[in-house]
Amino acid sequence: MKRVRRVGVVAKPSPIRARPVLRALLRRLRAHGVETILDFEAARILGRPREGVDRSDLGRRSDMVIVAGGDGTLLSMARVLPRGGPPVLGVNLGSLGFLTDVSREDLAAVLPPILAGRYVVSRRMMLSVEVRRAGRTRGRYRALNDVVINKSALARILDIELTVEGQPITVYKADGLILSTPTGSTAYCLSAGGPIVHPGIQAIVVTPICPHTLTNRPLVIPGGLTLEAGVRTGDENVFLTLDGQVGLPLTRDDRIRVRRSTHDLRMVTLPGRSYFRVLRHKLKWGTR
Amino acid sequence: MKRVRRVGVVAKPSPIRARPVLRALLRRLRAHGVETILDFEAARILGRPREGVDRSDLGRRSDMVIVAGGDGTLLSMARVLPRGGPPVLGVNLGSLGFLTDVSREDLAAVLPPILAGRYVVSRRMMLSVEVRRAGRTRGRYRALNDVVINKSALARILDIELTVEGQPITVYKADGLILSTPTGSTAYCLSAGGPIVHPGIQAIVVTPICPHTLTNRPLVIPGGLTLEAGVRTGDENVFLTLDGQVGLPLTRDDRIRVRRSTHDLRMVTLPGRSYFRVLRHKLKWGTR
Amino acid sequence: MKRVRRVGVVAKPSPIRARPVLRALLRRLRAHGVETILDFEAARILGRPREGVDRSDLGRRSDMVIVAGGDGTLLSMARVLPRGGPPVLGVNLGSLGFLTDVSREDLAAVLPPILAGRYVVSRRMMLSVEVRRAGRTRGRYRALNDVVINKSALARILDIELTVEGQPITVYKADGLILSTPTGSTAYCLSAGGPIVHPGIQAIVVTPICPHTLTNRPLVIPGGLTLEAGVRTGDENVFLTLDGQVGLPLTRDDRIRVRRSTHDLRMVTLPGRSYFRVLRHKLKWGTR
Amino acid sequence: MKRVRRVGVVAKPSPIRARPVLRALLRRLRAHGVETILDFEAARILGRPREGVDRSDLGRRSDMVIVAGGDGTLLSMARVLPRGGPPVLGVNLGSLGFLTDVSREDLAAVLPPILAGRYVVSRRMMLSVEVRRAGRTRGRYRALNDVVINKSALARILDIELTVEGQPITVYKADGLILSTPTGSTAYCLSAGGPIVHPGIQAIVVTPICPHTLTNRPLVIPGGLTLEAGVRTGDENVFLTLDGQVGLPLTRDDRIRVRRSTHDLRMVTLPGRSYFRVLRHKLKWGTR
Repeated sequence: MKRVRRVGVVAKPSPIRARPVLRALLRRLRAHGVETILDFEAARILGRPREGVDRSDLGRRSDMVIVAGGDGTLLSMARVLPRGGPPVLGVNLGSLGFLTDVSREDLAAVLPPILAGRYVVSRRMMLSVEVRRAGRTRGRYRALNDVVINKSALARILDIELTVEGQPITVYKADGLILSTPTGSTAYCLSAGGPIVHPGIQAIVVTPICPHTLTNRPLVIPGGLTLEAGVRTGDENVFLTLDGQVGLPLTRDDRIRVRRSTHDLRMVTLPGRSYFRVLRHKLKWGTR
Repeated sequence: MKRVRRVGVVAKPSPIRARPVLRALLRRLRAHGVETILDFEAARILGRPREGVDRSDLGRRSDMVIVAGGDGTLLSMARVLPRGGPPVLGVNLGSLGFLTDVSREDLAAVLPPILAGRYVVSRRMMLSVEVRRAGRTRGRYRALNDVVINKSALARILDIELTVEGQPITVYKADGLILSTPTGSTAYCLSAGGPIVHPGIQAIVVTPICPHTLTNRPLVIPGGLTLEAGVRTGDENVFLTLDGQVGLPLTRDDRIRVRRSTHDLRMVTLPGRSYFRVLRHKLKWGTR
Repeated sequence: MKRVRRVGVVAKPSPIRARPVLRALLRRLRAHGVETILDFEAARILGRPREGVDRSDLGRRSDMVIVAGGDGTLLSMARVLPRGGPPVLGVNLGSLGFLTDVSREDLAAVLPPILAGRYVVSRRMMLSVEVRRAGRTRGRYRALNDVVINKSALARILDIELTVEGQPITVYKADGLILSTPTGSTAYCLSAGGPIVHPGIQAIVVTPICPHTLTNRPLVIPGGLTLEAGVRTGDENVFLTLDGQVGLPLTRDDRIRVRRSTHDLRMVTLPGRSYFRVLRHKLKWGTR
Repeated sequence: MKRVRRVGVVAKPSPIRARPVLRALLRRLRAHGVETILDFEAARILGRPREGVDRSDLGRRSDMVIVAGGDGTLLSMARVLPRGGPPVLGVNLGSLGFLTDVSREDLAAVLPPILAGRYVVSRRMMLSVEVRRAGRTRGRYRALNDVVINKSALARILDIELTVEGQPITVYKADGLILSTPTGSTAYCLSAGGPIVHPGIQAIVVTPICPHTLTNRPLVIPGGLTLEAGVRTGDENVFLTLDGQVGLPLTRDDRIRVRRSTHDLRMVTLPGRSYFRVLRHKLKWGTR
């Protein structure tokens, strides 16, 4: 990779925990002669509110983005990065994330080789989501983890029709439906009984939430196919959620078209920090 | 059992489908010299609105209650039956229910022995539910199927602490928690991954909804123990639901105390209509 | 409980680990003026091989049995205890078991009250198992954890017919079938997807192993009912296993009749050592 | 595709059911001027035993192979097809298979376009399996569905170490381990709780059988990675099974190296006979 000259710094809105990490990070970047751009949060936390720029603008102008926060901050940055945007490095604020595997303590050892361009990029597929109503597009979104259709606590069970490449597959009677990337397979999808899918696979994992039928099993569909979910029942109490962060009300007969986005997120990974290591540490996976 | 002289008739609010069943039922009851009492719905559907009485009053004055509807109608009747109330027979309106196993076609064969007192009663335990806030009781309820704590579609994952007999058991990180009777084990609980518990067992089945931890498994607790669930997180977006029918908003630190009710529902069952037969027909259980 | 005057001591056949625990145990029992009877293993490990007596004889002559070993040793002792036999205390050799909750370090604090009769008994239902061939009983057995029918590694899938009280329930197409007590619900049954059933419940948990059909769910049946499993397919490669310890070859059309045994195991439990505590510690249940 | 001139016909060893299908098939092939080569079974069933040829030889000499039988016959043929061998069409003998989707009744409509070269090929990845002992290769195999390590009925639980690309992932404590292709994901893997993986994905599904730990979940690994499973415990009672058909005894410390085979099976598929259609019909998937 080429040498990093300009780093965009993005922060979680939590001044108390983020400030020391941000300060340490900026000191180190400056020491390497790297220019920095701050998002509004990072600027505010560092007491320089007027320097903050819009995240999508920051994405366009940086060689690399460093996210200081948890997986949530990285997810929200991923959704606004421009196509072909810079690679992203996640620095956690103390608690290990799936996507923010570098700690403050790691920075000293980790930054020099990365800034010199010696790092590996792990490409993560994202989902392109289109909400259609009465044959017209009502909104377009991206998601790194998952797209979830679910009902409110008091609403009745949903009928959700799923098609793949326009062909009807099944009608789920369930509390909801999760369409997840491999990256998202260790998030909500896992709670609903889904498998763990390695991010090296381009696939969409389809997992119903509390299905009413005993025969439903999670499905892993090639990322190249287009899925469409239609809520047949439902009223104002059905919602679409992107990465567990953005919620949109759905109405009856809305159709949610999901396919692999033409944007991949490029994540900076460290040698030896394998996918399975995070799996074990974070999920206590396979622990006795 | 003793001869049935007065039958309370309770109906689902769906005149079109219920009317012929109700008429056939009343004709047969009259032919056996049995007096009838109608609830408001049954009276309305039969065009005699002024004859309708309150369901709990009806329960007190009848030797037997016949519910014409689906499982939902029977569930709502069960919650208002007085302690030591009459046995209940469920007559379905066409589609088989777990609790309404008799069809209109069955009435001719089934009513004579039942009215003569030749029937078996299946006792079904119910749950007694107490909502406590700041050390005071805010409400008391009963449920035949289940008591569910869950969050709204857009709320964050809940922390639900569970105690048994005052002893802390675990803190669930989940979308919700289901406390179910054996009768309810084939309802929502089953969708969330719970086992099928025969109603001959006095037990409370504890099943988390989409638990965040991989190690949670459904628990089956003796019906004689008192469970208490406390929502640690949460705001106005957490709800308590009884039998999927009654919803109550919860606030942080509300405590839900659940134990076996001193009321059992007494269900009239037919010889040869076993629990497992319904299981197979309704759930397609064990079907290839 | 009445004062304990004679303790039967039963040991796991593992001299190196058991010897110091056994010595400490005998020293303490002697100090309390309690007479001891040794089984063959305990006698051998302590270098007094001629003092060993048969376990079932030991059970008949003792006021209490102390098992020094793991769950396996306690399971094998439970199957030979006479009806109405003495209560059993499990002492582990270092690694926590579900049934052997007392460690060597606990002995000093725990023995005095127990020997004075200040302890609580937890009754554990056991299974009575009858193997029938061509209408005749071929063997009768007991099990504390479970009765498992399964096939050898290379055999084809089994067809196992299940009846409850003589009524056909379903035909499992599976690698095997587990009939488990609540005590056994945290053993093999859990690996096969079964629920955790509190030992205060009298029930038999029916869990298929790798069922071929998607609709099978674990069943919890009242302990008072009689279950019968018949292997329809199968040849010399089908086995019956009791508590994972005793294996018997089955032949086609053998029928396995399982009901609650008239013997309960009476387990000595310590105040504050609740069922749920063991669950958490041993299973890491609910651990994040 | 190019016109089919020579078809190899492979049959299940079940003369009574296969004979009419085989005769109808040969009549039709002859009517299209297509030359046929018979395997030993097909030759024997048709009463022409001397015309039978070895299946792998048959594979080399045919433009297309038609398998008359069930999935089992197709699986066994797939394992002996030479690299770059002809496409395979499965014709079932009456009961629908996942891989043998064409019935005798379909032949009239289906053969003309296929023989004229108007068909679509669905590529199915296969597994290459290498058994290593003491650092040396002891055997190499292929499998279309799955590679299973499991224990005999009476053996103790296994410790199976899994590495991916040489990196230790976890040690499964389980009855066994299934490494499956997407094609095999609807076979044994599904019974053990695995997800349904579309065959358009190149992946290996790793599913433990009755895992002792509560935290294990099925893993979906990119087909390009090399997996190695080592049985740490075990004695003569551990076996390796290929496609549920070929069984090999393993000894302690044997290592099973599994990767995507350089051979893909090329399956002839019919327009409109989609993967999901078979899923619904065969698995009753999503059925209420």
